[in-house]
Amino acid sequence: MEFITGLTKKEQDLEVILSKDIEVKEQKQITIYGAIHTIRDMGDVVFVILRKKEGLFQCVYEKTDQEIEIPKLKEGQTVQVLGTAKAEERAPHGFEIRLKSIEIFSTPKKPMPLQISRWKLNTSLEANLDNRAIALRNVKERAIFKIQEGIARGFRDYLYDEGFTEIHTPKVGAKSAEGGANLFKLEYFHRPAVLQQSPQFYKQMMVGVFDRVFETAPVFRAEKHNTKRHLNEYTSLDFEMGYIKDFRDIMEVETGFLKYTFKLLKDKYAKELKILGVELPEITQIPEVTFKEAKEQVAKEYNRKIKNPYDLEPEEEKLIGKYYKEKTGSDFVFITHYPSKKRPFYAMDDPKDPSVTLSFDLLYKGLEITTGGQRIHDYDMLLEKIEKRKIEVEGMEDYLAVFKYGMPPHGGLGIGLERLTMELVGLDNIRQATLFPRDQSRLIP
Amino acid sequence: MEFITGLTKKEQDLEVILSKDIEVKEQKQITIYGAIHTIRDMGDVVFVILRKKEGLFQCVYEKTDQEIEIPKLKEGQTVQVLGTAKAEERAPHGFEIRLKSIEIFSTPKKPMPLQISRWKLNTSLEANLDNRAIALRNVKERAIFKIQEGIARGFRDYLYDEGFTEIHTPKVGAKSAEGGANLFKLEYFHRPAVLQQSPQFYKQMMVGVFDRVFETAPVFRAEKHNTKRHLNEYTSLDFEMGYIKDFRDIMEVETGFLKYTFKLLKDKYAKELKILGVELPEITQIPEVTFKEAKEQVAKEYNRKIKNPYDLEPEEEKLIGKYYKEKTGSDFVFITHYPSKKRPFYAMDDPKDPSVTLSFDLLYKGLEITTGGQRIHDYDMLLEKIEKRKIEVEGMEDYLAVFKYGMPPHGGLGIGLERLTMELVGLDNIRQATLFPRDQSRLIP
Repeated sequence: MEFITGLTKKEQDLEVILSKDIEVKEQKQITIYGAIHTIRDMGDVVFVILRKKEGLFQCVYEKTDQEIEIPKLKEGQTVQVLGTAKAEERAPHGFEIRLKSIEIFSTPKKPMPLQISRWKLNTSLEANLDNRAIALRNVKERAIFKIQEGIARGFRDYLYDEGFTEIHTPKVGAKSAEGGANLFKLEYFHRPAVLQQSPQFYKQMMVGVFDRVFETAPVFRAEKHNTKRHLNEYTSLDFEMGYIKDFRDIMEVETGFLKYTFKLLKDKYAKELKILGVELPEITQIPEVTFKEAKEQVAKEYNRKIKNPYDLEPEEEKLIGKYYKEKTGSDFVFITHYPSKKRPFYAMDDPKDPSVTLSFDLLYKGLEITTGGQRIHDYDMLLEKIEKRKIEVEGMEDYLAVFKYGMPPHGGLGIGLERLTMELVGLDNIRQATLFPRDQSRLIP
Repeated sequence: MEFITGLTKKEQDLEVILSKDIEVKEQKQITIYGAIHTIRDMGDVVFVILRKKEGLFQCVYEKTDQEIEIPKLKEGQTVQVLGTAKAEERAPHGFEIRLKSIEIFSTPKKPMPLQISRWKLNTSLEANLDNRAIALRNVKERAIFKIQEGIARGFRDYLYDEGFTEIHTPKVGAKSAEGGANLFKLEYFHRPAVLQQSPQFYKQMMVGVFDRVFETAPVFRAEKHNTKRHLNEYTSLDFEMGYIKDFRDIMEVETGFLKYTFKLLKDKYAKELKILGVELPEITQIPEVTFKEAKEQVAKEYNRKIKNPYDLEPEEEKLIGKYYKEKTGSDFVFITHYPSKKRPFYAMDDPKDPSVTLSFDLLYKGLEITTGGQRIHDYDMLLEKIEKRKIEVEGMEDYLAVFKYGMPPHGGLGIGLERLTMELVGLDNIRQATLFPRDQSRLIP
């Protein structure tokens, strides 16, 4: 009988070199694998650049060398190479590999549809998305998703430390939190069902169980928009916390998360930040202004008419971002006390002025990346608001029942992972911050 | 202008006491919040047990005490209490809180539908699931999901360390990996779409980009089974790794993950393990036997007839688990080389015997918790198998295209998070290891 012991074999030679535990002054024998990113044939000398998860690595051989055996090489082949590492300042990572032999695992059938080995993938967004799995092989393209990984990782790690519990709530259900029009409908064993557009009801219910909860999972919105900042399926970073003093507690946790995450990115994702030329924003504090104040300030400052007093237009959000950046130096600004009529029924109205809610959005470079706020925790108050809005409670019985049995003051937020990635990296279109975006026209790949 | 600085206010008094930084010999003033779990009125003395995310805490007051102000209390209220902590061996955590005052945040409208304050929630599974958000408030019920958190956390942390990249792939698509019957169908902007039953195609495509990838996300299976170990929506822990030597590399990573995770659970989830009476399995090594060998061994040992030579019946899996537990002491056993006709088209056949695949299942206490294996990475070999099986390639163009442009030898696996939780905790039914289970009859809560 054979046994598996759980000893994983990393590429030890490479790890040692990359960790700078030794200097590659001496020639050192090394075996590494990778995909052939480019081949530069300089006549006698051939440079073969390997693409690996750790980055690009330069291999080199001389055609006239009788002692080596190099088969016919092609870009896109996946290979394992054997050679000697030697210090070389001009090569990536400060060393190159003088090839002895190459084993080929696979050879492409066709030339690449995109020139992925270029530093900047010069192609239209359409061509990029049509050939997505290939486009992402470009070093800059894939670096975006390491940054995205760092954001989700920072979110979870920070919240574990703050005593939150991770939850997994169902995406298929009979009814959704915000109700109504923007739901994808499906048939679930001969019954009508919907895809959840938010874990809102579930995370609130789970505050009664774990006090503080979070979830990082897909949400689905059948909204018919076609903009650079909307997707019909995206990853939502959600949390909900009980026993808050007021809704500022929620903004404090979000600010703490951002600080923690930018430090994590700086520490563990420096390579990708550099590839993308990202300068992380410095956060010491984030200004907090009311919806009304921000709106009026921007109208005054930029000589704009206020068209809709209940909502912010994208253009207005941009100007708010700009104004408070200039005034406070912060790329982020919390906009608080949104009008009640624009917030869902479960939002807590301000007791001092019930026309506004104890809620907020977080703008980052003038783009909304978070919506959050305090929720109603009193059963009667919740019913009252539902009645006032004439909302159909059918299907919400389980959500409402929770409030009959005692719920603490609580609130939370949702952060769009792709939006935050997009703004942090400085991308034009949210689809560039999504591995396989889903929009009205795009259901494949 | 106000600012948010990201300083979160944890319950510092409580943290200090729980971290044993001070001994509560002296009376120490303390403020904590929580839900009233039980009230025990002993005549003059009243014990009020608070339920918090950290566990249960005993508060006490004397009715005759003139200096305190205690309002009418009810189980299920959410409150904040002020009192003095005092060492008390018989109380949870070794101290109790002598109450001075209580502030009430909310009061239940109705008595609880379940006796959640009992140690063991004595109720039917149906009643538990019908009142799920309340049932989970039971201390034992909720502990299950802390263990579940630890498993997902261990999976991610271990794989980050092993150089994997976290990915988020779409759950709505035009076509799914295994194709065919067991898909939930939906309408996506007037086009037919399906919910993904696995991230299989996407994670394979992303091996060409990141070499190693993982995802922890929901999957959807419209299978009409009604058993104790199946769900129609569950959380799948998936990984896929490139440049493998053979499929044992995958089993090594899984074994490494299990070892890492059990250590994490022991270190950070000791309280919940104790509440649930869970003894973690000790893993030093996991035996690996072929499908054929395991089947024959069990037939011989337990005097069973082999009915179906191509698959394992649940009863057979149980006996295999039992047999190798007795023989090797391991709760886990890898079953390798599953018959090709029972594995999907992308599975790599064994070149030595094409009737079997280079694949495996992992059984834990006789229950399958993982399916994995090496995949075909050669374009022609893949097409050949697709043709042989007469599979419709429409909708698979993007998946297939990736293999035209070079893919490394690779493989991976999927682990059912709820199944692993169920077996680790020793639960009878997978629904108990799911916050809000989805099965043929259950679409709410």
